[in-house]
Amino acid sequence: MAETIRWGMVGGGIGGFIGEVHRMAARLDGGFVLQAGCFSSDMERNRLSGIELGIAPGRTYDSFEEMAVREAARSDGIRAVSIVTPNHLHFAAAKAFLEAGIDVICDKPLTTTLAEAKVLAQIAQERDRLLAATYNYTGNAMIRWARQLVSEGALGSLRLVQVEYAQDWLARDIEQQGQKQAAWRTNPELAGRAGCLGDIGVHAYNLARFVTGRSAGRVQADLTRFVPGRQVDDNAQVMLDFGDGLRGALWASQVAVGSENTLRLRLYGENASLAWEQEHPNQLQFTRFGEPPQVFSRNSAGYPAALQHLCRVPAGHPEGYLEAFANIYGEIRAALQTGSGDYPGVDVAVADLAFIEACLESDEAENRWRPVPQ
Amino acid sequence: MAETIRWGMVGGGIGGFIGEVHRMAARLDGGFVLQAGCFSSDMERNRLSGIELGIAPGRTYDSFEEMAVREAARSDGIRAVSIVTPNHLHFAAAKAFLEAGIDVICDKPLTTTLAEAKVLAQIAQERDRLLAATYNYTGNAMIRWARQLVSEGALGSLRLVQVEYAQDWLARDIEQQGQKQAAWRTNPELAGRAGCLGDIGVHAYNLARFVTGRSAGRVQADLTRFVPGRQVDDNAQVMLDFGDGLRGALWASQVAVGSENTLRLRLYGENASLAWEQEHPNQLQFTRFGEPPQVFSRNSAGYPAALQHLCRVPAGHPEGYLEAFANIYGEIRAALQTGSGDYPGVDVAVADLAFIEACLESDEAENRWRPVPQ
Amino acid sequence: MAETIRWGMVGGGIGGFIGEVHRMAARLDGGFVLQAGCFSSDMERNRLSGIELGIAPGRTYDSFEEMAVREAARSDGIRAVSIVTPNHLHFAAAKAFLEAGIDVICDKPLTTTLAEAKVLAQIAQERDRLLAATYNYTGNAMIRWARQLVSEGALGSLRLVQVEYAQDWLARDIEQQGQKQAAWRTNPELAGRAGCLGDIGVHAYNLARFVTGRSAGRVQADLTRFVPGRQVDDNAQVMLDFGDGLRGALWASQVAVGSENTLRLRLYGENASLAWEQEHPNQLQFTRFGEPPQVFSRNSAGYPAALQHLCRVPAGHPEGYLEAFANIYGEIRAALQTGSGDYPGVDVAVADLAFIEACLESDEAENRWRPVPQ
Amino acid sequence: MAETIRWGMVGGGIGGFIGEVHRMAARLDGGFVLQAGCFSSDMERNRLSGIELGIAPGRTYDSFEEMAVREAARSDGIRAVSIVTPNHLHFAAAKAFLEAGIDVICDKPLTTTLAEAKVLAQIAQERDRLLAATYNYTGNAMIRWARQLVSEGALGSLRLVQVEYAQDWLARDIEQQGQKQAAWRTNPELAGRAGCLGDIGVHAYNLARFVTGRSAGRVQADLTRFVPGRQVDDNAQVMLDFGDGLRGALWASQVAVGSENTLRLRLYGENASLAWEQEHPNQLQFTRFGEPPQVFSRNSAGYPAALQHLCRVPAGHPEGYLEAFANIYGEIRAALQTGSGDYPGVDVAVADLAFIEACLESDEAENRWRPVPQ
Repeated sequence: MAETIRWGMVGGGIGGFIGEVHRMAARLDGGFVLQAGCFSSDMERNRLSGIELGIAPGRTYDSFEEMAVREAARSDGIRAVSIVTPNHLHFAAAKAFLEAGIDVICDKPLTTTLAEAKVLAQIAQERDRLLAATYNYTGNAMIRWARQLVSEGALGSLRLVQVEYAQDWLARDIEQQGQKQAAWRTNPELAGRAGCLGDIGVHAYNLARFVTGRSAGRVQADLTRFVPGRQVDDNAQVMLDFGDGLRGALWASQVAVGSENTLRLRLYGENASLAWEQEHPNQLQFTRFGEPPQVFSRNSAGYPAALQHLCRVPAGHPEGYLEAFANIYGEIRAALQTGSGDYPGVDVAVADLAFIEACLESDEAENRWRPVPQ
Repeated sequence: MAETIRWGMVGGGIGGFIGEVHRMAARLDGGFVLQAGCFSSDMERNRLSGIELGIAPGRTYDSFEEMAVREAARSDGIRAVSIVTPNHLHFAAAKAFLEAGIDVICDKPLTTTLAEAKVLAQIAQERDRLLAATYNYTGNAMIRWARQLVSEGALGSLRLVQVEYAQDWLARDIEQQGQKQAAWRTNPELAGRAGCLGDIGVHAYNLARFVTGRSAGRVQADLTRFVPGRQVDDNAQVMLDFGDGLRGALWASQVAVGSENTLRLRLYGENASLAWEQEHPNQLQFTRFGEPPQVFSRNSAGYPAALQHLCRVPAGHPEGYLEAFANIYGEIRAALQTGSGDYPGVDVAVADLAFIEACLESDEAENRWRPVPQ
Repeated sequence: MAETIRWGMVGGGIGGFIGEVHRMAARLDGGFVLQAGCFSSDMERNRLSGIELGIAPGRTYDSFEEMAVREAARSDGIRAVSIVTPNHLHFAAAKAFLEAGIDVICDKPLTTTLAEAKVLAQIAQERDRLLAATYNYTGNAMIRWARQLVSEGALGSLRLVQVEYAQDWLARDIEQQGQKQAAWRTNPELAGRAGCLGDIGVHAYNLARFVTGRSAGRVQADLTRFVPGRQVDDNAQVMLDFGDGLRGALWASQVAVGSENTLRLRLYGENASLAWEQEHPNQLQFTRFGEPPQVFSRNSAGYPAALQHLCRVPAGHPEGYLEAFANIYGEIRAALQTGSGDYPGVDVAVADLAFIEACLESDEAENRWRPVPQ
Repeated sequence: MAETIRWGMVGGGIGGFIGEVHRMAARLDGGFVLQAGCFSSDMERNRLSGIELGIAPGRTYDSFEEMAVREAARSDGIRAVSIVTPNHLHFAAAKAFLEAGIDVICDKPLTTTLAEAKVLAQIAQERDRLLAATYNYTGNAMIRWARQLVSEGALGSLRLVQVEYAQDWLARDIEQQGQKQAAWRTNPELAGRAGCLGDIGVHAYNLARFVTGRSAGRVQADLTRFVPGRQVDDNAQVMLDFGDGLRGALWASQVAVGSENTLRLRLYGENASLAWEQEHPNQLQFTRFGEPPQVFSRNSAGYPAALQHLCRVPAGHPEGYLEAFANIYGEIRAALQTGSGDYPGVDVAVADLAFIEACLESDEAENRWRPVPQ
């Protein structure tokens, strides 16, 4: 932990959700020190957030544009910034920092359109900047083991992936009743055209891609708006064809009454299968054909040595959501410090946006198969 | 139990699976006495089965046609027959007994085509005979409670059904290695054009229909043959549109490595949801929006008095597959003895075959939506 | 199933619980035909039970003494009788039938005192009669696998057994409110001096003995009466010392609110452990030291061929309470027909009563260690 | 988070376990800044730890005595210190800092004897210093809810507590093979006379006390050394009598093969019960008599507003071991900053040591009941 990274944040004013999550993740990792920010477009909230977060005078900025320019000009300016605003601001903010030569960590989805994501990808490449999207569930220590099992061939050739992500917090029209999270997430101007699909469906797809190492070649999507008056989908059912004999189904819902945050992956190969549930994230069920299921456990029997840096505490001492999130920050830190880290980069973000667009297209074309741009 | 029903069987020679299941179910029910049969087309196996099953001399028949005619002619002839042959024989056998005036209990699917099912339906109606299809999972005491919860409105208007049925016994090409069950079930001549879909997918659809009380209006199906050389689908992914705001997804697979007999139903309404798993069939999770999940238990707190006849033992004393099967027999017995019983009748069987045909059609039409004949 | 066993019953009038359980178990087994009975001391109920159960005229008896004598005298008399009365009648009834040369199947506990059990044991030996006690949980197909794993040495030398049996149906003083089951089971004159300990604690101890193949050498018991006015214990906590390095704890309760019928066994050896729960009886968790837990499943991967006759349906098709009970009847039938069957015999019943008496003694001696008579 | 607390540490050299846990917990809390330490008696390891942990020159001390004196003398000296050494050093270190006027946070058990704990209690009182023992599991957000349910009377009068803590890492004699954690924890000179009982049994007892709000009045303990050559118990079975109709059993084991860190509490009252498992710490099962079990979830339906500060992320986003630990630090911080915080204080530590001593006494007295000093 010799050195820490000077770090800033755009969005994440106090009282919100995801900004504090990023801060806790970074703190748990221990390698980032928050030194500058533009926390809210509400100037008073921005100011108070800066104070509460211990930002030095003059480094809580009124705009991210100003922040990017001025931090880049400081000799002790931030090296990296996390962007945790509503989705529609990701693009402009990320662009500003990349162009200022500052590495960018962006909440997912990277942008609201595929085109924007590609622009960012190009800028990041030209400027040789890190551009990460915090697909936090892929930081889970068991998901990384799952990926390793697949890549080592433990499942044999892959046949089927079943992935789902169910919540119920949008089962009512709370966006019309002043709930702020709901308001922006169901507003296509702020969140993008994809509602549930873009908010959580993309996490599910991303998880499937991460573990299988494969991208869907075409999709057939049925997006539904169950709650009257809702402007975006609150439920998505997608058939996935990855090609080469791998097929799948993805279900994402924000109206699945009784579901808190049920992200669940099942993957079936010719020789074995695995299953993981985010709400009990320290276990992974692994079953070889013709053998009893085994319950793998984080940091326990068989856990790969190469992944042990993802575990903070011994087996049986549960780690959770924040620990997985902190692992993403840890890998980003490794990348920044050593040039090598296993974090979700811009290619991932682009692939996920391609998926979203293909789903939207399919939904508008009577739910027929549509190719996913590669 | 005053009176028992004189009962016969077609198919179900000793050493097979489903015939013995029907016999155990009937025995557990206690109201059927097996008195005649045509157990196998293999004459020696037929003869030995008759002996083993205690059939009186002369009532083990060489053909079901003969059996139908001769039993109908006896004053003490069987009143009802169970048909447990491979699917392709269901039609002819059922027809023979119905025409002889004998009530018919048929393993599912009733026939291999919708057209045949409709013919049987008409004969049964003309002759005023009972014609039941043993969708055994709908005999489960918790599934019946689930149906009651739905019909009483406990879930509010229904939005989503997720149903799946996963097995792995066909993950390899065992039909080419002499496994008899696999051989006929993957042979379209014997099992019908639908493989996995017809064998277990239809159970899943039937369960969803039973609990929701609704039929799909259109389907979009993707049927896959994962195992090289297989003649029928071994995996089915189906999107369901029930109309009136209810949508769903169905997944059936016989290549899902690690799955034994995982039939699982989840149903989401506006106000509550429920979830049930066949492998732990004595529980039902019920969750009202904004309240903690509740784990309902068979014959325990809140179990409806009107369903208590479906429970043989107190709460905490698990009942299983055979008990659910026996409940189907019990309802058929009630129908035969009192004229009123809650069993899966010919309308159910016809609806399920309509579903299968629509899925096959969709699969052949680039997986597009196809209407389910009502 | 060539031949069936002519069978009678003492106790088990219609409307009761355990008699019907025995009848269903026997029916599911398929090898017993009920032909005579003395079902109730209430003459009208006895008569009606005989009719309902299809007993031929003249074979529903007013007393078990008469039944024993007259059935023994018939050439077509019953070969075996099941005794399912309240506990205090077991001794006299069993004695009468054994002395009449009729084999006896008795619900557990065999008698209410150890002395009586030993008398029956002697009579059975002298007359060379079968005397079984229906410890039904030991008929479970997974428990038998567990026993085999232990005896084969899969766990290494045994260290610890944790067994518990929790219910909550006596959490209130329902015996004072006319609940008949509760009334006799909490009446020491009818049930014996041990309440919860004798009703279910003994099942737990029996299960531990069955699986480990070991008997406790000494016990330290704390018996409690939580419900005011109760005449017998409704909760039992027992420390077990089996000698040779195996220790254990047993907890039985009938006031454990929220528990239906939670019989649970955990066994730890030097090299592996196993865990089983009666409410999910088709699974067995097996864990080797330093390896991930495995979930064994009935009739699935690794299930011993020698035990397959205990399974009626394939893996994933749950069997339950009645199937385990039927397995006990099946083993008794095997013993009667072939001379060899693996059922709980009189030695088991005697050992369990010795355990009960040692516990009662300890409880009266300030809960100190007391030897269990061997 | 306006202000942070200047903080030191004794023990916790890099590469060890519990020191890093305390540091992560404090970081996750966000209110502590590590500024001084005496991390190891190995001078080189101490020095390297100071560097790695970013301690300013001159504030990594050779001895805790020196550290206490010199930090107390600095105007910017630490306000609080965490003691995370092996148990035998807790007393002297805590004494030194308390006497220097520095608040003390001590890993559990506070000391190795009850007498020492009482001495510390007195010093803390005289000097008006905070003295906390990090019983981390009581920081879990669901355990705090459980306590509130009990204190509000949701369970009615309490009857039974079943608590257990099972691990298997000492199933072999690894202390004789150079495993350092095992070496000191099984050495009575370093860990105290109680082995498993003192290491984890006391966590179990503490948890029961915390949730019930009651202390055992007497105990009956059976302490076992299963592994040959072991100097302290590796398994403890304890019967608990809390008086006033509450009884219980505690089982702690470090040889329970297949158990990782299975701390589990079940509590039964007259009207309801609750159950919690540390390995799935975001759920709490709550069952009212005669009603279906409910699965309570952290930060979800019904979660008390007064406890919401214990939750960092929404329901369905699992928190784990570190988050509970961080809650203890958060409460200590609140106490330090506001004078009011709900953390395990010296009274708790004293009560737990009294329990340990009573158990040791009972074990030496043929496992008879022994009073727990109050």
